[in-house]
Amino acid sequence: MLVTVIGLGLIGGSLALELKKRLGYTVYGVDVNTANAQKAIDLGIVDRIITIEEVGLSDIVVLAVPVNYLPELANKVLNFIKKDAIVFDMGSTKEKLCKTVENHEKRSNFVAVHPIAGTEHSGPEAAIYNLFDHKVNIICDKELSSETAVAKVLNIFNALQMRTIFLNSIEHDKHIAYVSHLSHISSFMLGKTVLEKEKNEKNIFDMAGSGFESTVRLAKSSPNMWSPIFIENKENILSSLNEYIDNLITFKNLILEENSSGLQQTMKETNHIKEVLKGIQK
Amino acid sequence: MLVTVIGLGLIGGSLALELKKRLGYTVYGVDVNTANAQKAIDLGIVDRIITIEEVGLSDIVVLAVPVNYLPELANKVLNFIKKDAIVFDMGSTKEKLCKTVENHEKRSNFVAVHPIAGTEHSGPEAAIYNLFDHKVNIICDKELSSETAVAKVLNIFNALQMRTIFLNSIEHDKHIAYVSHLSHISSFMLGKTVLEKEKNEKNIFDMAGSGFESTVRLAKSSPNMWSPIFIENKENILSSLNEYIDNLITFKNLILEENSSGLQQTMKETNHIKEVLKGIQK
Repeated sequence: MLVTVIGLGLIGGSLALELKKRLGYTVYGVDVNTANAQKAIDLGIVDRIITIEEVGLSDIVVLAVPVNYLPELANKVLNFIKKDAIVFDMGSTKEKLCKTVENHEKRSNFVAVHPIAGTEHSGPEAAIYNLFDHKVNIICDKELSSETAVAKVLNIFNALQMRTIFLNSIEHDKHIAYVSHLSHISSFMLGKTVLEKEKNEKNIFDMAGSGFESTVRLAKSSPNMWSPIFIENKENILSSLNEYIDNLITFKNLILEENSSGLQQTMKETNHIKEVLKGIQK
Repeated sequence: MLVTVIGLGLIGGSLALELKKRLGYTVYGVDVNTANAQKAIDLGIVDRIITIEEVGLSDIVVLAVPVNYLPELANKVLNFIKKDAIVFDMGSTKEKLCKTVENHEKRSNFVAVHPIAGTEHSGPEAAIYNLFDHKVNIICDKELSSETAVAKVLNIFNALQMRTIFLNSIEHDKHIAYVSHLSHISSFMLGKTVLEKEKNEKNIFDMAGSGFESTVRLAKSSPNMWSPIFIENKENILSSLNEYIDNLITFKNLILEENSSGLQQTMKETNHIKEVLKGIQK
C-alpha cells in the first residue's frame, strides 16, 4: 500500500510514522516547505519526498495542511488520483471543505476525518508515536463517501486504537468551536494579558503555579495552524466567543457587587465539569 | 514542637502531613466543620482535634482557612498565643490581612505566607504528601515579622524543599491576580460556556481533547475557597479581568475581519509564553 501524506507537521508527520510502523505502508511525503520536507526525510518520517503532481501513484492520499488550504487541495488531489484511490483530510473544520468537494465526480473517494489529537507543538520535529491511541476520531458526512473508502479509513484509525464516531459536517463545526477552538482563544488571551502586565518576567516565573501553566498551555500553539481555523469556523467561533465574553462580564459584575452567593452558585454549577471530564477518553 | 493547624482542607491538611512526617512535630487541628475534623483524624492528618481557645499551648499556629476569615482569625489567634509562639497563614491574598494585623501588639509573631501550591481538589481527603516540593513560597512584609518568626517559617518551608521569595503584600496581590486568580476565572467561564451550550454532554465526552481538559481544569476548584479570594482581591482582579475581556474583544474583531496577519501576529507574540513557562519551577 502506497500512501502520500501532504503536510508533514505534527499531525501529518505523526500519522506517517504510524502508517509505516503499524500498517507497514510505504509513505511518501509532500510539503511546500522544503526545509520541513528535508527534516521529514532526516527524521525517517517518510520514505521519499514527491511533488503533488505525482500523487496519482498513491492508493491513499492524506491531507494534513492548514485548514484554509484544504478545500482547494482536496479538489486538486481528487483530480490526480487513480480510480480506486482514497483521499482523506485531518482538519479541524469541515463545513466549507465538504461543501467545496460536494460535486466533485470523485466525491465518494473522499472521506472527511478529524482525529481529536494533538499537542501544543508543531512541525515535523513535533511528530510522535502513539499520538492517536485511545483518542476519538470523527468522520463527517459518511454517507457521501463510498463504503470502501470509509472501510479503508476505519482500518487505519482502528489500527491506531481510536474510537470513531460519525457526525454531520455542519454539526461538527458547531460543537468543535466550543470544545476545542474556544479554549485555544481563552488560553491565548490569558497568555497575552499576563505577558502585557508582567513586563518583568521574573514575576511570572516566581508566582505562577501549575494552575496557570495548565490554563495557558494552548497559548504555545502554532499561529499558522490556528489562524486559518478561526477564520474558517468564524460564525461558530464568534457565537462561542460572545457567550464566553458575556459570561465573563456577568462574573465580573458578581465580583464588583461582592455577591458571594452568586459567585459560589456559578462556580458550583460549573464544578459539574468534573463529572463531564471523567467521561473524556484519555 | 506543638503545631496547631486551623482549617484542615487541601492546603492545611497537606501541611499537617508534612509537619508530622518531615519535622516530627505533634500536630493538632481545628476545623469548624466537624465532619472534616473527624475525617482529618481518621486519615491520620492530625493527632488531635482541639478548639480554637486551646491554641495557646501551641508553639506554631497555622491559619489555613478561606481568605475572608483570615484577618479576624489572625487577630484572635494572636490574642491567644503564648509570648514566643508564631502564627502564619497560607492564604492567596495578603493586603487586607496584613493591614488588619498591622497594629496588633504581637504583629512580629505573625508571618504572612503564600506557598504557590495546590490542586483543583479540596477537603481533608484531598490532602497529599509532596504537594509543596520544589515549588515557590512567598513571604510578605517580612520586615514586620521578627527575625525569629521568619527563621522558624523558613525552617519549615526549606524542609518542604520550597524556594522562598519575599514580596510586599500590596505587590503580591497585584501580581497574583494576573498569574493565578485570572486563570481560575478564565477556566471557570470556559467550563460554564461549554456546559451551557452542550446540553448533550456526550458531545463533550466525544469531541473534547486534552487541550480542553487542560484549559478547563481549574473549573473544578472549590467555590468556598475561591469566592472569598475574588472578593478580597477585587480591585486587582477587576483590572486583570477588564484587560482580559478587552483582549478577547480585540481578537474577536480580528476574526470578524478575517484579519489573518493580525491573528498570526498576536499569537506569535503570545507564543513567547513558551520561554516564560520553561522558567517556572515545576
